[in-house]
Amino acid sequence: MNMLELIEKKRDGGVLGKEEIEFFVKGVTEKTIPDYQISAFLMAVLFKGMDDQETTDLTIAMSESGKICDLSDIPGIKVDKHSTGGVGDKVTPILLPIVASFGIPCVKLSGRGLGFTGGTIDKFESIDGFCTSVDPSEFKSKIEKCGMLLGGQTSDLAPCDKYLYALRDVTGTVPSIPLIASSIMSKKIAGGSDAIVLDITCGSGAFMKDPDSARELARRMISIGKLAGKPVTCVMTSMEQPLGIMVGNILEMQEVVSVLTGNGSDEVKKVVLTMASEMLKMTPVGKDLDSETLMAMCEEKLKNGEAFEKFGELILSQGGMLQSDGSPVFVDRPCEVMTVYAECSGYISKCDALMVGEASCLLGAGRMEKDDVIDMGAGIRLYKKIGDKVSRGEELFSLYTGTKNPVGDDRIDEALFKMQDAYEISDQAPAKPKEILEVIS
Amino acid sequence: MNMLELIEKKRDGGVLGKEEIEFFVKGVTEKTIPDYQISAFLMAVLFKGMDDQETTDLTIAMSESGKICDLSDIPGIKVDKHSTGGVGDKVTPILLPIVASFGIPCVKLSGRGLGFTGGTIDKFESIDGFCTSVDPSEFKSKIEKCGMLLGGQTSDLAPCDKYLYALRDVTGTVPSIPLIASSIMSKKIAGGSDAIVLDITCGSGAFMKDPDSARELARRMISIGKLAGKPVTCVMTSMEQPLGIMVGNILEMQEVVSVLTGNGSDEVKKVVLTMASEMLKMTPVGKDLDSETLMAMCEEKLKNGEAFEKFGELILSQGGMLQSDGSPVFVDRPCEVMTVYAECSGYISKCDALMVGEASCLLGAGRMEKDDVIDMGAGIRLYKKIGDKVSRGEELFSLYTGTKNPVGDDRIDEALFKMQDAYEISDQAPAKPKEILEVIS
Repeated sequence: MNMLELIEKKRDGGVLGKEEIEFFVKGVTEKTIPDYQISAFLMAVLFKGMDDQETTDLTIAMSESGKICDLSDIPGIKVDKHSTGGVGDKVTPILLPIVASFGIPCVKLSGRGLGFTGGTIDKFESIDGFCTSVDPSEFKSKIEKCGMLLGGQTSDLAPCDKYLYALRDVTGTVPSIPLIASSIMSKKIAGGSDAIVLDITCGSGAFMKDPDSARELARRMISIGKLAGKPVTCVMTSMEQPLGIMVGNILEMQEVVSVLTGNGSDEVKKVVLTMASEMLKMTPVGKDLDSETLMAMCEEKLKNGEAFEKFGELILSQGGMLQSDGSPVFVDRPCEVMTVYAECSGYISKCDALMVGEASCLLGAGRMEKDDVIDMGAGIRLYKKIGDKVSRGEELFSLYTGTKNPVGDDRIDEALFKMQDAYEISDQAPAKPKEILEVIS
Repeated sequence: MNMLELIEKKRDGGVLGKEEIEFFVKGVTEKTIPDYQISAFLMAVLFKGMDDQETTDLTIAMSESGKICDLSDIPGIKVDKHSTGGVGDKVTPILLPIVASFGIPCVKLSGRGLGFTGGTIDKFESIDGFCTSVDPSEFKSKIEKCGMLLGGQTSDLAPCDKYLYALRDVTGTVPSIPLIASSIMSKKIAGGSDAIVLDITCGSGAFMKDPDSARELARRMISIGKLAGKPVTCVMTSMEQPLGIMVGNILEMQEVVSVLTGNGSDEVKKVVLTMASEMLKMTPVGKDLDSETLMAMCEEKLKNGEAFEKFGELILSQGGMLQSDGSPVFVDRPCEVMTVYAECSGYISKCDALMVGEASCLLGAGRMEKDDVIDMGAGIRLYKKIGDKVSRGEELFSLYTGTKNPVGDDRIDEALFKMQDAYEISDQAPAKPKEILEVIS
């Protein structure tokens, strides 16, 4: 077997066997296959696709390319959660405490953000003292302490995927459904959970721009889960506009606190409660209950303060600091740079997630390059969302930076222009976008 | 402009502008674009193609990536000839002396062989003393001496193509018509000739397996020639079976001598005379004459010995040695290893060019790897070709090696098995394959 033959086989539309895929993954991991052959192969996969079996073989081989977390000595069904990424996506910090408050152990390994989508790890690191570098050997004791754990993905978890991901990023081979599906699922499988709930975002601010490709990605990941023996449920959510009203690390965590204390927008709650109920369905707690009942049970955890208490426990367990009211101490504070007001009256017909994400990134809330330092206080507050009525002179959005090394005026100007393009006001009231597009399992 | 954008544009079916293609060629030549991006781009081109303008822009940019031969101080129209490669292809050593005997200057820059197709340079180097490393500064004096020159392609001729060619070879991106066409034409344009006649081989032993792709390749190269201001004529020839009866370096040169002295098969003569007449048509000698007249004029050069005399002049001009009868002195001599006889009577229905080429390569006549040393005496003699009647016990083919370091018995056995597979005898007489499939200009 040699790599050239594999490239040619895939180029000509052939189906690769398990051994061929394992040869490829081994060669990538051990760096015996040169990058130029890997990238030619990835481009051939982009054009010719992979069937479900190939994609599963790739996923499993990648998950086995490094360490696999063994969570078997933590009792109970461990359910993992993952999102394909979005703007203003603050689901995890609310979801985890809710699920954990039912006594279900939650181990969530998250990534950092690159580009316009924020990373959950970055959001938690906006809490003073919060440490996300948890060694797998400490998982059990952390879980026993508060029933939850939030860790950064270590480099020994699916290293082959890490390498391929970096190469795809610079060779135009990112938008391939089997490659996206296997990348996500390899990390989830290596993460050691028993079942997985995936948030497949769909729209301008998501990786999947249209429902058809989102559905196809969902179908793929469910199929991989089936073949790999891990139940997968996919919740397709809209990402035409950002989720909620805050975008940026501290700003989003502030919104998280607001939701956990019984306030916050219905929009965020809808997504969180749907995800939570799907996670519970995979455990003994919820397996015989319907979604409506489960969502109500989860909402009760927000109302009675249990989820907020759990959130505090998680923060303390990982070294973070709390104020006397139970909310986190942040490393900085967001400073309003300017507020923009509506120039005419009407209805918000566009609040483009991608552009808001890019504007937030320009303000310093995200990384443009891998080694950029994030301004935790930077971001955007949205006063109006799609379908909202707006009168001339009403607040539309505010831009924020942190107090330490804020970006310069030119970057703020650029962000402002992006935000002005992101919003559109029309005479007709458009339909409010549905938060949940579909639940597939 | 950056390379990732170019990859994505081509991946999504976009048409690249001249500046984008020049950016790519400059980046490859100056090694500022990493190989993994080049190979991803090449794979995207393989799937999405290039239109005529893109292909021409690529050709010209590649031809300008190094030195361009300036033949302007050699008087007359300089016509170049190129073949897309085949098995037993001994056209050049016969063609050049014929054309030169009409007083037309011939500068032919050839490549070495890799894999089952033989290289013209290798064939000439089977002549004792013959030197193909001619510096472009010596071109004029050599031409004045004998009207012909046969040189190896130097590394400063279209270096971008050289680099891309090597990368395509190991990344499964060879079979792309725009890439093949631009690769050939960039070298021809850098070679400095005024007009070009191309032999597009077609069949099992050729790069183009079917007439449709051969015709498409021809169309592309004619189009590039038009856009680049160099007239191009394409002669499509059959490569279902090897050309002529000898395959291997010295063996083929022996067949060359035989044709040049008025003997040799009609098959080889047909191809040589067609090519020669097309070359003459591009010069003042033949521009007003029809093919039939020109072919007869060329055949006369074989009959009256003028071409053979020219052949001798070329050899002497480049340091080669001649015997008293005017034929070349070779560096070795072919030794017959075995002869295989027909096991049944009938008609030859298959004499597969690819398999014969591979068998010859196994015997040592070609390179399996770039740095292999060729056994100049090795090769195969074919006693029967497609359509020939054969009786049980008649000679079918003989295997040869040279006297110095012949290959071992296992390689000879392998070659024998290949040859046995290459031949098929059937009860029905098949049609003799046409040598010339089409002439396109």
